[in-house]
Amino acid sequence: MTQLEAARKGIITPEMEEVAKREGLSPEEVRERVSKGTVIIPRNRNRKNIQRIEGIGEGLRTKVNANIGTSSDYVNYQEELEKLKAAVEAGADAVMDLSTGGDLDYMRRRVLEECPVMVGTVPIYQAAIECRISGRPVISMEKEHLFDVIRKHAEDGVDFVTVHCGVTIQAIERMEREGRVLGVVSRGGAIITAWMKANRKQNPLYEYYDELLDIAKEYDMVLSLGDGLRPGCIADATDRAQIEELITIGELVQRAWEKGVQVMVEGPGHVPLHQIAANMVLQKRICHGAPFYVLGPVVTDVAPGYDHLVSAIGGAIAAANGADFLCYVTPSEHLRLPTVEDVREGVIAARIAAHAADIAKGVKGAAQWDLEMSKARWNLDWERQMELALDPVKARAMRGSRPPKKEEDVCTMCGEYCAIKMIRG
Amino acid sequence: MTQLEAARKGIITPEMEEVAKREGLSPEEVRERVSKGTVIIPRNRNRKNIQRIEGIGEGLRTKVNANIGTSSDYVNYQEELEKLKAAVEAGADAVMDLSTGGDLDYMRRRVLEECPVMVGTVPIYQAAIECRISGRPVISMEKEHLFDVIRKHAEDGVDFVTVHCGVTIQAIERMEREGRVLGVVSRGGAIITAWMKANRKQNPLYEYYDELLDIAKEYDMVLSLGDGLRPGCIADATDRAQIEELITIGELVQRAWEKGVQVMVEGPGHVPLHQIAANMVLQKRICHGAPFYVLGPVVTDVAPGYDHLVSAIGGAIAAANGADFLCYVTPSEHLRLPTVEDVREGVIAARIAAHAADIAKGVKGAAQWDLEMSKARWNLDWERQMELALDPVKARAMRGSRPPKKEEDVCTMCGEYCAIKMIRG
Repeated sequence: MTQLEAARKGIITPEMEEVAKREGLSPEEVRERVSKGTVIIPRNRNRKNIQRIEGIGEGLRTKVNANIGTSSDYVNYQEELEKLKAAVEAGADAVMDLSTGGDLDYMRRRVLEECPVMVGTVPIYQAAIECRISGRPVISMEKEHLFDVIRKHAEDGVDFVTVHCGVTIQAIERMEREGRVLGVVSRGGAIITAWMKANRKQNPLYEYYDELLDIAKEYDMVLSLGDGLRPGCIADATDRAQIEELITIGELVQRAWEKGVQVMVEGPGHVPLHQIAANMVLQKRICHGAPFYVLGPVVTDVAPGYDHLVSAIGGAIAAANGADFLCYVTPSEHLRLPTVEDVREGVIAARIAAHAADIAKGVKGAAQWDLEMSKARWNLDWERQMELALDPVKARAMRGSRPPKKEEDVCTMCGEYCAIKMIRG
Repeated sequence: MTQLEAARKGIITPEMEEVAKREGLSPEEVRERVSKGTVIIPRNRNRKNIQRIEGIGEGLRTKVNANIGTSSDYVNYQEELEKLKAAVEAGADAVMDLSTGGDLDYMRRRVLEECPVMVGTVPIYQAAIECRISGRPVISMEKEHLFDVIRKHAEDGVDFVTVHCGVTIQAIERMEREGRVLGVVSRGGAIITAWMKANRKQNPLYEYYDELLDIAKEYDMVLSLGDGLRPGCIADATDRAQIEELITIGELVQRAWEKGVQVMVEGPGHVPLHQIAANMVLQKRICHGAPFYVLGPVVTDVAPGYDHLVSAIGGAIAAANGADFLCYVTPSEHLRLPTVEDVREGVIAARIAAHAADIAKGVKGAAQWDLEMSKARWNLDWERQMELALDPVKARAMRGSRPPKKEEDVCTMCGEYCAIKMIRG
């Protein structure tokens, strides 16, 4: 039984118990949401070494994912495992291995071994790369091969996989009729689109969706319905192709639920600030409350080097308006494969966005953390402030680099003219 | 004549011409907004060496201010002048000298000499510090002394001054009746509050507001009506004291306009994400469309070391909902006096927030920048992408640190699996 099937039968699984405990909810509240599909618990039956089970969705703390992985241009397994460690230490709730270079099976299995939190992958990368390595173009990828790779990831214990099932012929045609500045920027979406156009065939992930559901069900692996046609710049945001794909994804959510398969929906991407709330409302309505996993959104295209910050703006607004799961973006986005330090900065930025949103949407306990910090500030209790900081190491280092000279209980910003000291008298 | 008086008489000043040119508006559009008070042009009659005149307000690009200045704990004039230079190079539209240590007149005059953009100050700091230096407590500050300092700043050519006129006895009483976690966190607000409570007198900046207007009018110095009771933590946001002060400020805006004095309004502070839009609507309505200058807002209290990012989230939402002018916050906020690098990071973060908001509110030309970048991305034109980057130096350095190996027209994130390349074919 999947978590969804168990929940429908009224069974409270150990995973639901753990999620309830973490969120300060009753196990019954969690079970009820899992049964409706508005909460998922990604945890592959075959997954080992997972030390933290988390739920994603309705009323829960907004979760954060960090992407790691080799690229065809840069393969260093050890560095990727360091990124994994840095991401988890910085507080990531999930890690996706998006490797596209070197020995993909080795890398994925190492990640699954060493990662204490849920792990996701995008199997189509491996299928495409294996074509390429065997000397054939990506468009020669066979459906059976793609599904074999998905099954292998499931068997290995991957907790959730991104599958771009909503990229249909109709959606691509609509994209081409309307026109786009940046075409397709999702790697998986680009592979599928190129394949469909070259082979003049429907997307196999759509056509054979039932087979995919069977695999997912067997392992209780969550399907993350990828937005292969997500906008790659704000000018393309919320266009007809994006929404056409979303509508199809909504139907696929329902089919997953009918089969007892846990599912979430991926979302944009690049979206201008004033369109974010509408995108969240639309997804929640069309997908009947399925958990929403967004990448960014990036609210301006002009700040490469700072896309973690750009995404924190978009992510905070998205999560406050209903997104449940934020995929981090690092400062390196649009420039290079991220470094270990970029991974750290990316996770922290996404966690700040998630927490700011959790305060706004009234997630249990969220505002309490801020209240404790505020009380420590009023008490000029610096040790407590450092303990409560989202990143205590950085906070301590910064304060320590310019410590107060005359009075120990202030900081060098205001010195003896500390407003709090003046008011406390 | 002030800019406001000239505009009312139908005169288009050279300053209005310059603002119109920068914003891509007609001089008449700018004149009309200045005449209503919804746009201000800070430019003291005595100010020398200003190389860039900018307007702030209705329909204009959102502007960014950087605070610099010595503290009682750390006095290094040269470093503050380096911060000034770094702020302007990073794109700040205004600089405030908030010095509270060393020779305040010297520092302010050096800033006025070397700064190519508008300069603001908070004169009450100097009045309070001069009391303290002469061996008396801050609460012994005399009204005449405070006003003399304000006049001195005006004579020196300061373009706008923060004056906490809205901190009334009634507002303080309301604050005390409701209770707060963090009391008063504005330094100017704390000085005035301590003074009023010790002397059992009304705020002289409120009581003698007409005298203040006379000084401001003489030099066409903008009054920035400070929010001395701004919340210092999200738990205190939008409370009765804050709104009481805002109502008083609304009345003071009207009195300034009646006298032909240009005025803007300062706003919070620490505000949870879901309260920001309401705060913007409230200010615009109560202050009849006067330009709104916000500090942050900080959307969570728990991330010291990252408050530039925390404020970028709040600032973007604030500006998208009506704020016209963002005061940056640096990564050092709540920890120490900022470094030169912190100043740079703070300005860039605020500029990103301002630009994301300008796209959302449809400021002329804002989205065009993003479109150019997106076209460069589609063309895999990396040189053009670097030129268009908000911070080209950082973007180039990051890309250069991990350059592509096999194919020059991609980046090491995706290498040969670049989605754009796959789709372009």
